[in-house]
Amino acid sequence: MISEPVTIPARRGKAVLVNAGQAIKIINTHGSQVVDTWAFVADKLTEFMSLEHARATMLRLRPQVGDVFRTNKRRPILTLIEDTCHGVHDMLLAACDNERYGLLGCTEYHDNCTDNLHAAMAALGLRAPETPSPLNLFMNIPWTEGGALSFDPPTTRPGDYVVLRAELDVVVAMSACPQDILPINGTTGTTTEAHFQIVTPGSA
Amino acid sequence: MISEPVTIPARRGKAVLVNAGQAIKIINTHGSQVVDTWAFVADKLTEFMSLEHARATMLRLRPQVGDVFRTNKRRPILTLIEDTCHGVHDMLLAACDNERYGLLGCTEYHDNCTDNLHAAMAALGLRAPETPSPLNLFMNIPWTEGGALSFDPPTTRPGDYVVLRAELDVVVAMSACPQDILPINGTTGTTTEAHFQIVTPGSA
Repeated sequence: MISEPVTIPARRGKAVLVNAGQAIKIINTHGSQVVDTWAFVADKLTEFMSLEHARATMLRLRPQVGDVFRTNKRRPILTLIEDTCHGVHDMLLAACDNERYGLLGCTEYHDNCTDNLHAAMAALGLRAPETPSPLNLFMNIPWTEGGALSFDPPTTRPGDYVVLRAELDVVVAMSACPQDILPINGTTGTTTEAHFQIVTPGSA
Repeated sequence: MISEPVTIPARRGKAVLVNAGQAIKIINTHGSQVVDTWAFVADKLTEFMSLEHARATMLRLRPQVGDVFRTNKRRPILTLIEDTCHGVHDMLLAACDNERYGLLGCTEYHDNCTDNLHAAMAALGLRAPETPSPLNLFMNIPWTEGGALSFDPPTTRPGDYVVLRAELDVVVAMSACPQDILPINGTTGTTTEAHFQIVTPGSA
C-alpha cells in the first residue's frame, strides 16, 4: 500500500513518522530539486542517522541500493532499497543555514534547510537535539581523484525518486532546499516543491 | 615560543586551551598513530569545528596548507598552516566508539576516541555537547573514482606533524586512536602515544 503523495513545499520542510518496516518514497517531482533528509529514532531523538558513522561501514562517498545508513550509535536506521538516480546524492555537505547565505553575499535572512528541519520537527511537537549532517538527496557534488569538490547542477529528471526503508520507528525530516545562488537546484535558481509517499508492505 | 611537548597517552585523550593567534603542533611521534582531533569555541562549547560545514567552503575531501576549518556556525576556527603529511588526514569518518568495536567483533569494552574526547574535556571541567565528526590526523582513508573508501595503513613517518592556528579561543581535544583491529595505526595493531606543543607567535 502506498499513501497519497504529500507535498514538501518549495523552500520549506516537512517531517513524518515512518514505522519500522515501512518505507518512504521521496520524489523529485519537477526534476531538479535537492531534498535534504534526516532520520531520528522516534522514541529517542538523540539517536539519528549519522553519515560519518554510516560511511565507516558503507565505505562509500555515495550510496548504492542495498546500502544501510546507521545512527550515531551504529544501529541500522534506513536502507536504500530503490534509486532511479544511480546514487547521485550528496553525503558530504552540511545543511545550508542563514550563516551560509551570509557567506554567499546575502545581507538579509534567507530560507534555509537547517531552519526548515527544526520547523518541521516542531510542527510534530518534536525537537531535534542538533542538526546532523543530512543526506542531500538528488544533490550532485562530484569529487576528483585529488579530492576537489564542486557544486554541480543536478543530473535528475522529473519523477526521479528514492525509496528508503525504515529499520526502526523513525521520524524522517525533509527540506526542499532553498539554495538559489549555487546551481545545485539547477542553473536558473528555481526552487520547487517535492513529494513523499509512505509505503506499507504486505497490504494490497 | 613553543611549549615543551605534552604527551597524548596511547589510547587516551587530552584537551588544551589554545588562544586565538596561537597554534598547536600535533606530532605523530612514533610515526603511525592516528590522532582524532576536535575544536570547540572556548566560551561557547556548542559551537565547534564541523567538517561538513568546512567542506562546503574548503571544497576538498582532504585539507591543504592554508585551508580554513569552520564551525557549525560557519566561522573560521582553525587554519592548517603546516603539514608534513601532504594532506593525508581523514575528514570523512566518525570517531570510533564502543559500538564500533562491537561491530568489529569485540565482546568487551574497548578503548575508543569518543569516550576519550569526553574524558579529556571532563579533565578540564568541560562538557562537549555532542561528538562532532573529528579531523582524523594522520589517518589514511583513500577514495576511488567511483567513491569507494578503504581503511589503509598510515603513510606517515616518525615526527610527522601538522600545525593548526586558532582563529578563536578554542579548546582542542585529541585522542590517540586505540584502533587495533583495522590497520589505520599500522598493520601490527600497535597503538602509541603522540605529542603536542603550543606555539605562541611574536615572542622569541
